[in-house]
Formats: sequence, C-alpha cells, structure tokens
Amino acid sequence: MDIKQYMEQVGQQARAASRAMAKADSATRNRALLLIAEAIEREAPALRAANQLDLDAARAAGLAPAMVDRLTLSEAAIATMVEGLRQIVALPDPIGEISGMKFRPSGIQVGQMRVPLGVIGIIYEARPNVTVDAAGLCIKSGNATILRGGSEAIHCNRALAKLVKEGLLGAGLPENGVQVVDTTDRAAVGAMITMPQFVDVIVPRGGKGLIARLMEEATVPMIKHLDGICHVYIDAKADLQKALDIGFNAKCHRYGTCNTMETLLVARAIAPRVLPELAKLYATKQVELRCDPEAMAILAGYPHLVAATEEDWATEYLAAILSVKVVEGIDEAMDHINRYSSKHTESIITEDYTDAMRFLREVDSASVMVNASTRFADGFEYGLGAEIGISNDKLHARGPVGLEGLTSLKYVVFGHGEVRK
Amino acid sequence: MDIKQYMEQVGQQARAASRAMAKADSATRNRALLLIAEAIEREAPALRAANQLDLDAARAAGLAPAMVDRLTLSEAAIATMVEGLRQIVALPDPIGEISGMKFRPSGIQVGQMRVPLGVIGIIYEARPNVTVDAAGLCIKSGNATILRGGSEAIHCNRALAKLVKEGLLGAGLPENGVQVVDTTDRAAVGAMITMPQFVDVIVPRGGKGLIARLMEEATVPMIKHLDGICHVYIDAKADLQKALDIGFNAKCHRYGTCNTMETLLVARAIAPRVLPELAKLYATKQVELRCDPEAMAILAGYPHLVAATEEDWATEYLAAILSVKVVEGIDEAMDHINRYSSKHTESIITEDYTDAMRFLREVDSASVMVNASTRFADGFEYGLGAEIGISNDKLHARGPVGLEGLTSLKYVVFGHGEVRK
Repeated sequence: MDIKQYMEQVGQQARAASRAMAKADSATRNRALLLIAEAIEREAPALRAANQLDLDAARAAGLAPAMVDRLTLSEAAIATMVEGLRQIVALPDPIGEISGMKFRPSGIQVGQMRVPLGVIGIIYEARPNVTVDAAGLCIKSGNATILRGGSEAIHCNRALAKLVKEGLLGAGLPENGVQVVDTTDRAAVGAMITMPQFVDVIVPRGGKGLIARLMEEATVPMIKHLDGICHVYIDAKADLQKALDIGFNAKCHRYGTCNTMETLLVARAIAPRVLPELAKLYATKQVELRCDPEAMAILAGYPHLVAATEEDWATEYLAAILSVKVVEGIDEAMDHINRYSSKHTESIITEDYTDAMRFLREVDSASVMVNASTRFADGFEYGLGAEIGISNDKLHARGPVGLEGLTSLKYVVFGHGEVRK
Repeated sequence: MDIKQYMEQVGQQARAASRAMAKADSATRNRALLLIAEAIEREAPALRAANQLDLDAARAAGLAPAMVDRLTLSEAAIATMVEGLRQIVALPDPIGEISGMKFRPSGIQVGQMRVPLGVIGIIYEARPNVTVDAAGLCIKSGNATILRGGSEAIHCNRALAKLVKEGLLGAGLPENGVQVVDTTDRAAVGAMITMPQFVDVIVPRGGKGLIARLMEEATVPMIKHLDGICHVYIDAKADLQKALDIGFNAKCHRYGTCNTMETLLVARAIAPRVLPELAKLYATKQVELRCDPEAMAILAGYPHLVAATEEDWATEYLAAILSVKVVEGIDEAMDHINRYSSKHTESIITEDYTDAMRFLREVDSASVMVNASTRFADGFEYGLGAEIGISNDKLHARGPVGLEGLTSLKYVVFGHGEVRK
C-alpha cells in the first residue's frame, strides 16, 4: 500500500470513528482519559524502553542536543503527561452545551449547540508528550484525531498509541478515535493536509519553517500561528516601575516562547528616564539591544548595543536580543505595530485612560494588553484550562486555543409544528 | 494597468481604509448608512437610467428572463434597498463589545473584544440590490469591503458605488471603505480570491457552479455553502398534522431556496398513514416524487411518480421535485442524512423525547430542528437581524451568518503591572 492509500485509510477510519466519539457522553470520554492515564503509569518502564530506542537512533544520527532533550521521556515527563490527562478530565465538558435559546415571533425557539468539529489532525515535532496532550484534548472535545509526530519519536509514539487505543476500547469508544500515523515517510504529512473530506482542521505545532511549508500546500483549514513578533509600548504617561517590571519580564522570563517581547517601543517624552533604567536590568542578562538612532544615543555606553536594521523590526529573535525604538507617541507606536507585528500579542504601559482604551481598540492583534507582560498570552494564564495551540488568524479561534477551539456551534431549533408563512 | 495590478491597488486601498473603518464609532458608521440611503432615494431616477443601460445590453445579449428579472432595479426594489439600510442602522453595533472579563489568579483580568475582520470581499451575480445590502452590513460591522458584482450590472453598480462613496465621505469615513470593482474582466475575481494579504474573507453569493470554481482557486478563506440538500425525517411517533404541515411547507413554500427540503425520509411504521395524505397535498402543486421501491408501492397511483436513482439522494432540485425514502427508524434516517446531506438543515418530526434529543445531538448539520419547517433556516427568522450569507462549514460562522460573522474576537487584558512568575 502506498502512503497516499495508507493515509486515506487512516482518514476514512477517523471519519467513521468521529460519529461515535461525538455522541459519547461526558462520563465515557472522561473514563477513556483516566484509563489512558492508568495505562501510561503502569507501562512507564516499557515507554522508557521504547523511548531509549528513539534516543539511541537520534544520538547515532547526530541530532542536536536540544532536540534530543525534547525527545526524552523522563520519569518526570511521564508523570506530567499523566497529571495533564487528569487535569483534562477535571475540565468542564464543552460538548452539548446549548446557549441563547430564544423564542422568535414565528413561535420557534432558536439557539446554538456546541459540538465537536469532527476529525482533528495534529502535526508536530519529535516530542512524545504532545502525543498524549493532543489526544487528551481531542478525546475530551469529542473529536477523532490523527496524530503525526516527528519521525525521530516513532518507537515511543507507537507505544503510546497502543495505550491510547487500550483506554478508548476500555471505555467502549472506537479504537480509531485516536490514530498515530505509523510511518516515518514525510509524504504522510502532505497527504494529511490535502484530504478535507476526512480531516476538518489541522493544528500544526512546530517552528515557523514547518508551518510555512504546510501553508503552501494545505487545503484543510489550519489553526496556526507562524511567529510571535510581540511589542511592548511604554507610553509617555507610563508608571516607571510597571514599565521596568514588564519591560524586563516580557523579554527575559523566557526567550524561546512566541509571547516573548521582540520589540520595545518607547515614547520620546519618557525614553531618557526609562531606557537607561531598563538597560541596567537587561545588562544582568547580557541582552543585546538593537536600537534606532535615538535609542542608541540614549543608551550610549551599554555593552551590547547594535544599530537596528529594517530587518530587525520584522524578526522574531527567540533569543536574548531586543529591538528598541523611540516613537513620538501612541499613534507612531500603533503605526509601527500594525506594520511589523505578527498580530500575536502587544501591550501598552500607561496610566492614561484614553491611550489605554485606544490601544485596546485599535491594535489588531490576537491579544492586546494594558500594563501586563506579553508572557501572559497563554491558554492556562487566560483560564482556558488547556491549550492546543495559538492562532494569529482572525477566523474561528484567535489567540490561545483551548477545548472550545476544537468545537463548532450549530443552530438548534425547538419547534411545535411551525411552518414558514 | 493590467487586471492583477488594478486589483492589488484596490486591495491596498481597502487594507489602508480598513483601519479607519474599524476605529470609527457607531454614530459615524450609522451616519454613513443613513447618508447612503438618502442619496439612493434622491438619485432614484439616475439609478433607474443606469439600470436601463444594463437591461438594454442584457436583452440585446439574449440574457435569460429570470436573470433580467434579477437585474431589474424597479422603484419597489430601490425602496426595499433604502429600507434595508435603515434596518441595518437600527441593529445593535456588534463592534467593541467586551465579554467575559474575569480576574485570574495572577491578578490580570482577561476577556474578549468583538472587532471587525478587516477587509471583506463579496462576489455575486448581477443583482444590484446585493451591492447595497452587502455594503451596508460591512459598514455596520466596521469592515472595508470590495464588491464584485456580475458584469451585466456594471452601469448600475457604478452609479451605486458613487452614492456609497458620497455617504462614506459625508460621514468622515474613507471613500475606499467600500470599493466596487470597476471592470467586467473575469480575471478580477481570480485576483481577488488569491490576495490574502489584502482580503481577510470572501463571501461568495451565487450558484453552486460559481462557488465550486472559486473553491478550487481561493487562498483567501470563504464563508460559503455549495448547496442545500435538506432533509425532513418523519419519525414513527410523529404527530400526523405536524408531519403534513411541515412536509408540505418545507417543499412547497419556495422551490428555489437553499433551505427547501429535497429529501423526505419516513419511518416504516407511519409511512402507510402519512405518505398518501402528504401526496394529496403535493398533488395540488404537481410535485414530482422520486421514490425508493417501498414509498413507490405505498404511493401507487400518484400522478407524478418516478423511481429514485442513487443520484437523486445527492441532488438539490431547486424545483417541484422531491426524493422520498422509507426507513426503519431514526438510525437509518441519520445514516442516510450523514451520507447524503450537504450539512445545511435537517428536521425531525416527532413527539418522542429521546428521538428528538438524539436527532439534535447526532445530526452534523449547520441547523438541526425538531417539529419545524427547514424553511426557517434564515438569518431573519433566527433573529440575526440581517444575513450576509449561509455557511455549511464548521469553522468560524456556521449556518445563517449575520453581522457577527463579519467580526472576530480578540483577547483583551486589563493589567496593573503584573509580570509572569
């Protein structure tokens, strides 16, 4: 069987399973999640042995240490997976909720019911924990799932797939409710993103390169973001301490996350006061500052100072590097943001009511904040309970995507024999 | 300038205008709508003269009478357009609404703000009234709009575009907030659906052929439905009078609409009682019944009886034709629906609580009804106030799409200096 045929079979099986997944009640779906958690706990030694095969192959192939690190399924990582599943069980069931039922002049009562999307495809790198997290969220939301993890994790993913199937069957759900693509052939990804008849949405989790490649070919809609070029704007009326706390936290709390600040904009009136103080904080972390001429002049003497190029304003560094620009005020700041932002997350630091309200209203990004660190743009911090991904698109889910992003609202009508006049 | 360059210029202008459209307050957007309504009333004779040029050309080209009819801008049609704009003014403003603001353990307060999508592209047939309806809904929802109507209406659309611009400028909004594509070259459509950098969503309004062609090429997301193969299932426990009323209304109220019933499914236990009675009603309208063998036997003697083919179950007739099938019960009915339905609208007629609840939950269509005519699947009937289109997709808007479908929810965070720990 060639890859395309194999993937179509996987797709057909997913579509067939999706109906049973969608109509299963809350208790059944939660029972499957708990059985999977138990199976993973019980089979931890076997999982680690399977993972060891992946790790040996990865080291033999000279995989970068950071990737080997992500690939590693430590005891702690297994415990975290199991705990994650139990947390998903504790979340409220999004499925079947009926909202807004209102009587209409015709006599019918109309509202909306939250229902699963159907079949979710997840494409991700060689991180075995994603296999379980993603399967858990999709089971909870009543969807069938096709998981395609990085080929370096194939042994571990196969072992996990077996346990997931065991849990599904134990709860009386179809074993094809979750399928792990059992091939390392890259053509499987190409097939998966071009079969809208079997897959309702793709959630790619990975670097910008992976997602950009998928976008070129995909005919299935995706919930995705390419990059996070996030801005903090320190307004003329900013509280100095808040500006320092947030300016430091948004850049230095973690460098590699998509909600990390990459560009700092500072109002001219406050720049001479705030920039030198902030630079003292950045200096403790050896943050390189790529500055426009005005910020450059204010920061003269800072040990890691570089002149910014046009390209810097459009770059997600994911590193101890920050672009810095002095602007006249909120209008120039918003012009800059609307030009260079990846529409992920932006924050204004200000005590001025009108500027705060204008920023919230006029900045066209998935998350817009006042006096808070961009690092808060996250499913857990927003109270979604879990996060399947982040979306920079405007249709369907926008910003951090939790269980609701894996659902759809259909209209339901309670009638009493009404006909249209 | 070639068509592609021209459309890119239109796109750039729309994108530039979208920021001013988005930040305009309710009063400004409503003022523009009222000014457009006034201008159309005032210029009614000039509009009818422009329309006459289109009608003369259409008749000379031998356009079908039904299309000439749609193209005609009668005095009544102008009054309806004007009234439609005033109704849009009276709708609540969807933009800027903030919902769900909740404090999180970190101290930040998180919720969502409803904002415009940005730039909406509308592609439609030669119906001048759509130009004004669509422009009105997009202005109300704070979006910039590119309108591409059927080339047969070009004179009339040009005249309307002038009045729309007059209204926008009169209210202090950018004249490019609404642009009518000023060329009859079909390449303009191809360009419009492949410039995601300038257009956020396309709403195609037209026949299945048009939309299927657009789907093959579009890289901009679309809010669309291809067809409406809607089902009514008369359950064994149906109330006979409701079954007759709804079975007749869903088919015969209007034949050409997407929410018209195309297939009737009847439970075996009730078929001998309900089908002959229904046939008496259908006979008054000479409805052709394309039946499976069992329905055929029950209806023997009906004057317009035809044996159904496999193709019939998958056909949207848009005519006085109905497919009829006898099924064992709700499971076979739902299997049939999930196989052949276009996922638009389905209705069950039953007095049985469990069957009603199962149908609502398990049928995967945009509208699912109990004891009501499928003809109610409509933005006005659902209380959306207006309808830009209908969506059979599951992502973003599903079912009748009103003003909210032209908006997006972004996250807003009110902070007080919080940083991530």
